[in-house]
Amino acid sequence: MPNDSHSPKPIAIEDVHIESGLWGERQAANRSRTIPAIYHQMDITGRLEALNLKRERPRKRSVIQMFWDSDPAKWIEAVGYSLHTHPDPALEAQADDLIDRLEKAQQPDGYLNTYFTVLEPENRWKDLRDWHEMYNAGHLIEGAVAYYEATGKRKVLDVLCRYADLIDRLFGPNEGQRHGYPGHPELELALVKLYRATGEQRYLKLAKYFIDERGKQPHYFDLEASERGEDPRDFWAKNYRYCQAHEPLRDQQEATGHAVRACYLYTGIADVARETGDQSLVDLSRRLWDDLTQHQMYITGGLGPAHSNEGFTFAYDLPNETAYAETCASCALVFWAQRMFQIDPHGRYIDVMERALYNTVLAGVSHDGDEFFYANPLTAYPRINPTENFSGIASAEHYRRSEWFECPCCPANASRTVASIGTYFYSTTPNRVYVHLYSPNVAHFNIQGSHVHLEQQTNYPWDGSVQISLGLDKPATFDLALRVPGWCRNYSVTVNGAAQNVTPENGYIVLSRQWKTGDSVGLTLDMPVERIAPHPMIRQDVGQIALQCGPLVYCVEEVDNGAQLANVVLPKDAPLHAEFDAELFGGVSVIHGQALRVEPSNWSSEMYLPEADVEYKRTPFDLTAIPYALWANRAPGEMRVWIRES
Amino acid sequence: MPNDSHSPKPIAIEDVHIESGLWGERQAANRSRTIPAIYHQMDITGRLEALNLKRERPRKRSVIQMFWDSDPAKWIEAVGYSLHTHPDPALEAQADDLIDRLEKAQQPDGYLNTYFTVLEPENRWKDLRDWHEMYNAGHLIEGAVAYYEATGKRKVLDVLCRYADLIDRLFGPNEGQRHGYPGHPELELALVKLYRATGEQRYLKLAKYFIDERGKQPHYFDLEASERGEDPRDFWAKNYRYCQAHEPLRDQQEATGHAVRACYLYTGIADVARETGDQSLVDLSRRLWDDLTQHQMYITGGLGPAHSNEGFTFAYDLPNETAYAETCASCALVFWAQRMFQIDPHGRYIDVMERALYNTVLAGVSHDGDEFFYANPLTAYPRINPTENFSGIASAEHYRRSEWFECPCCPANASRTVASIGTYFYSTTPNRVYVHLYSPNVAHFNIQGSHVHLEQQTNYPWDGSVQISLGLDKPATFDLALRVPGWCRNYSVTVNGAAQNVTPENGYIVLSRQWKTGDSVGLTLDMPVERIAPHPMIRQDVGQIALQCGPLVYCVEEVDNGAQLANVVLPKDAPLHAEFDAELFGGVSVIHGQALRVEPSNWSSEMYLPEADVEYKRTPFDLTAIPYALWANRAPGEMRVWIRES
Repeated sequence: MPNDSHSPKPIAIEDVHIESGLWGERQAANRSRTIPAIYHQMDITGRLEALNLKRERPRKRSVIQMFWDSDPAKWIEAVGYSLHTHPDPALEAQADDLIDRLEKAQQPDGYLNTYFTVLEPENRWKDLRDWHEMYNAGHLIEGAVAYYEATGKRKVLDVLCRYADLIDRLFGPNEGQRHGYPGHPELELALVKLYRATGEQRYLKLAKYFIDERGKQPHYFDLEASERGEDPRDFWAKNYRYCQAHEPLRDQQEATGHAVRACYLYTGIADVARETGDQSLVDLSRRLWDDLTQHQMYITGGLGPAHSNEGFTFAYDLPNETAYAETCASCALVFWAQRMFQIDPHGRYIDVMERALYNTVLAGVSHDGDEFFYANPLTAYPRINPTENFSGIASAEHYRRSEWFECPCCPANASRTVASIGTYFYSTTPNRVYVHLYSPNVAHFNIQGSHVHLEQQTNYPWDGSVQISLGLDKPATFDLALRVPGWCRNYSVTVNGAAQNVTPENGYIVLSRQWKTGDSVGLTLDMPVERIAPHPMIRQDVGQIALQCGPLVYCVEEVDNGAQLANVVLPKDAPLHAEFDAELFGGVSVIHGQALRVEPSNWSSEMYLPEADVEYKRTPFDLTAIPYALWANRAPGEMRVWIRES
Repeated sequence: MPNDSHSPKPIAIEDVHIESGLWGERQAANRSRTIPAIYHQMDITGRLEALNLKRERPRKRSVIQMFWDSDPAKWIEAVGYSLHTHPDPALEAQADDLIDRLEKAQQPDGYLNTYFTVLEPENRWKDLRDWHEMYNAGHLIEGAVAYYEATGKRKVLDVLCRYADLIDRLFGPNEGQRHGYPGHPELELALVKLYRATGEQRYLKLAKYFIDERGKQPHYFDLEASERGEDPRDFWAKNYRYCQAHEPLRDQQEATGHAVRACYLYTGIADVARETGDQSLVDLSRRLWDDLTQHQMYITGGLGPAHSNEGFTFAYDLPNETAYAETCASCALVFWAQRMFQIDPHGRYIDVMERALYNTVLAGVSHDGDEFFYANPLTAYPRINPTENFSGIASAEHYRRSEWFECPCCPANASRTVASIGTYFYSTTPNRVYVHLYSPNVAHFNIQGSHVHLEQQTNYPWDGSVQISLGLDKPATFDLALRVPGWCRNYSVTVNGAAQNVTPENGYIVLSRQWKTGDSVGLTLDMPVERIAPHPMIRQDVGQIALQCGPLVYCVEEVDNGAQLANVVLPKDAPLHAEFDAELFGGVSVIHGQALRVEPSNWSSEMYLPEADVEYKRTPFDLTAIPYALWANRAPGEMRVWIRES
C-alpha cells in the first residue's frame, strides 16, 4: 500500500526531551500526580481486581462496567509514553503487573475482555453498537503499542496481537465472517498503530474494512439487534447519526453524533487514508474537518455542545453554560489534527490542535494534576448537576473538577496526551523538519544523512520569542519550517542574527539552506491581547468578546472579579494589557483592564420591573482574566469566557 | 371544619356569560376546534377503546400508558364547563357515552383504572410514586364533578364516589390502611372538589391526610419500592424533591421538583387550608408562593425551566431557549392563584394568574385551536428535538405546536382552563364582589339579599378602558372591588360619571355604597408600551428587555423581523408604540419601533476573528412585536421575548 514516504511523520516521543516550560511542568505533574491518581482510582473502584477475572456483578447491569478495561489500557499507554523519556522502575513494575494480569485474563482463543469473560460469556460480540468490546480492544492495543515501544517488552504486544487476530478472524467481508464494526470507534486508529508496530498488513486491512463497511445497508446494528430479539427502533439514541453509522462514511457531509466517537473515527479514517492513499478518504477527512472547525467548534477547541448525545447538534449551536465539550473530545481532536497534517500538510490543522491543547485539554486536569473535568463549559454558574439530582435547589453548586467519574474516560485521556506531547511538536519529511509547537525542548532526528540536535529556548506561551539552535554531526541541506500560528499577525525571523524576509507557505515559514552546528534561528511572534469576536451566527455569544493572548483563551473568574459575571461589561475602548505574574500557578500571564459592573442601584422583591423605574449604576473595576486552562483551581465561583462588550 | 364563609368564593362558571372579546373568541375556538380535536386524538390513539377495557399491551411497558385515563377525564371536565354556558346535545351524548364506558370499566370494589385492570391487575397500588393511579383518580373526579354540576347527571359522580370510597378505605392513618399518598399530586385538590360537591367530609379528610403524611419517615415510597423488590436508591429521578416528598410539607421552604406536580399539590394545600383553617398550611402556601413568584417564574408566567425534571432548578435560573415552562404548569399556577386569593385576598395573586393566563396558557393552544405546545420557550431557534433525535443536524427544525403528544396532558389542560375561564373573573364574599379580570361578559350573583346582573364592556386586553353596568332586583349596599393590575401605574375610576378619588387596598379599588339598577362604573387603566427589565440575578436576560403592554408580554418573530434575532438591538431611546391591527388574528395590538440589526459587513469562513478586523454595520429597521400568546401561528421561524438593548 502506498504510504507516501514523503508525507510528514511525527518525531517520536523518545526523541523530544522536555524538562521545563509549561509542558515540562505539566508532564511533571502528570508523572507525580496524575498517573498515580488514576492508578489509585482504578484500584479502589475494582478495575485492577477485575483484571484478575474477579469482578462482582454490578447492582444494576451497566454498559459503563463493560468498558472498564479501557481505563487500565489508557493508563498503560500513558505510562509507556512517560517511560520513554523518564524511566521509573517502580512505575514500570506496576505496569508489568497489570500486563501479567491481562495475559492471564486472555482466553485460549485470544479473547480479552474482563466483563464478558466473567459476567456474560454468552453475550460476546452480541452488541457491537453499545457494548464497547471493540472500543476496549482498541485502547488495549494502543496501550500495548506504546508500552512495547517504550520498553521493548513484547508480552503485551503479543497478547494484543492474539486478540486482534481473533477479531480479524471473526469480522470481515468473507463468508462466515460477521460484517460488523465498532459502535464506539477507536479500534480503527489502534489497528493502524498495530500495523505500524508489527508490519502486519492484515491489521491495516481490518481497519479499512471497518471504515468501508460502516453505515451500509442492510445495517449491521439492525441485524444484531434483531438477533438479540430486540426491535432496532428501540435504540436508545434513536438513530445511527449518534455513532456516525447512519450512512456509508464516504456519503457523510458533517461531523455528527457523539463527539469522541466521531473524532476517534475521523482519526482512524485519516490514518487509513495516509497508509492506503485512498483519495476518497482524504476528501472525506477534509470535508468533515472543515465542517467541524468552521461550524461546530468552541473557541477553546471544545466540541460537542450537547449533553444528550455527548456530541454535535448543528452549525453554530454553541451554548456556553451547558457546553459538554468533553475533555476526551478535545484530546481526540488533537489526534485527528496531527493525522490531518500528515495527509494535507498545512498549519491550519496545527492551529486547531494548539487551540484544543492549550485550552480544553489543559483545562481537563487540575493544576495539581489529580482532579479532572469531563465537561468543559465556557460559562460556569452554580448549577444543578443533572446526573446527580433532578430536583432542585439543594444541590446547585459550583462546577468543580472531580477525582474520578462513573465513566472515567477523560482523566487517562488527558494523561496520555500530556505524556506524549513531544510527538506533536515536530514532523519530518526526507528533506524538511516542521516545527509545529513552541516550547523549551531538545529534539533529535536524522535528515539528509545528518543527525540533528535541535533545541528551542522560549517562554512560550507567555512570550512569543523563540530561539532555536542546531547541532549537526555534519552540515546538511534541508528546510526548517517554522509554524506561524493563525492567531499571529506580526512576526519576524532571524537566521544567525540576520533578519529574513519571508512569508509563510501553508502556515509555515520555510528556511531552506545548508545547516551546520551552531546555527541559530530567532522567531518572534507578536502576542498582544486580542479581543476575539464570535461568528455572527453563534447566537449564544452575540454582543460579547473573548480575550486571547497567543494560543491561550482567557476567562474571568469570580475569585478575581466578584460574582454575577453576567453583569460585567467591557467597554469597547478599554485598554487591556497582559502582565506576567510569577506567583500565580508558578508563573502565568494575566490580563488586566478596566471594566464596568452594570447593576441596578434599586430593586424590589419583584422579578420584573419597568425599566423606567430602575436606575443602573456603572461601577468601574479592574478586570482580571486568567487562562481558561487554569480556571477552577482556586476558590469555587463563577467563570466566563465570553464577556459582554459595550 | 371552619371553612370561613367570609372568605371569597369564585362566581360559578354558569353565572358568567362570555360571548365576545378575546376570551369569547378563545372559548369559541375551544368548542369548535379544541374539544373535537382532543376527542379525535383520543380516538385514534386508542384511549376511547381503552375505556371498554380493551387495550393492547404496549410494545414496551410504558408509564405513560398508565395515565391514559386522565385524558378522557380532562376532556369530560372541559365538556362539562362548556356545557354550562353552551349546551350542545351532540357533545353531551359523546360525553355520556364515555361515562357509560367508565361505569362499565369500574370493578365491583370500585376500582377504576383501565391500564391496571386489563394489563397488570396484580400491580394495583404497588407504585404510588410513579404509576399515576391516584393522579388518574383525581382527574376522573374533577371531570365527574364538572360534568355533574353542568348537567345534573349523577352517574359519573356516583362512579367516582365509589372509587374515592375505595381509596379512602385503602389509604389512611389507621391500622390496616396503607400510609401512602400520590406520587403525582392531583387527587388532593380533586377530593376537595368532591367534598364540596357531595358534602362528604371524608373526602376532605383524605385530602388532608395525603398532605399531612407526605414526606414523612419511614418514607412510603421507600417502603413500597422495597416491597416491589427494588432498591429505593434506584429511583430514576434520584430523590423525592422531584415529587415534593423529600420532607414533610410543612418543613418545605421552596417550590421544587416537577412543576405540574408542585402546583397541583400547592393548589390542594391551599384548598385544604381554606376548608380546615389550618394556619400552618396557610403559612406554607404563602411561603411557597413567594418563592415561586419571586425567584422562579418566567415573565410569561411559565415555570419549571428544566427538561430533566420537567420542573424547578434554583432561584433566578431561567434559560429562555431551553425553557420547559410546560403549558400544564401555567394552568396549575392559575388554579393555585385562585386558591391563594381565597385564603389571602390580595391582587398580587391575580397579577400572577393574569400573567400566566394571557401569556403561557394562551400560547399553549394555536389560534385555530387544534395544535398545542407542551414546552413554552421564550426564545425559539431551529433546534434539535431531544425527544426525537440525539444525533444532530438532520432534524434541527423550528419549534412548532403539535396536534398531540406521546404524553398529551397539556391540550386538555388548556382546554378545561379556557372553558372555565369565567369562574376566574369574580369572587364574592357576603358583602363584596371582587372583579379580578376584565373582559366583555355578563355575570349574575346574589349579594346582600339582592340579585345582581353585572355587565362589563371593554376591549381589554387591547385597551384599558372598562365600563361596568349594574342591574339589581333591589338596591343593595356592598363593596364593588375592582382590581388594579400590578402592571398598571395610572388609572382612574368614575361612578355614574363622577370621578372617584380612590387608592387600591391590597390591589383593589373598593367602591362601597348602595348600588341600584342603572349604576355604572368606569375604570381606565393606562396601558402604555413598557420596557420591562429582568431581575439582575437572571443571568440569561442580562442586557435585554421585554416589551409588555397591559397583561400581555410581547415577542418578535422572524416572519416580521427577519432571522438572526439575536443580532437585533433596540436602542434605549427608540420610541415604541402599540397599534391595533384589525386584520391580524381577528384584531390584536402590535408594537412597533425602530430597532437596529447589528451584524458584521465582512466575515470569513473562520468561527472567531479579532474584533479589530471586523466592521459592524448597524442597519435600522421597523421592529414589529406581537403578543407572545400568538407566536408560531404564522410562518415558522425564530422568536424572542427578551431583546438586546443598547
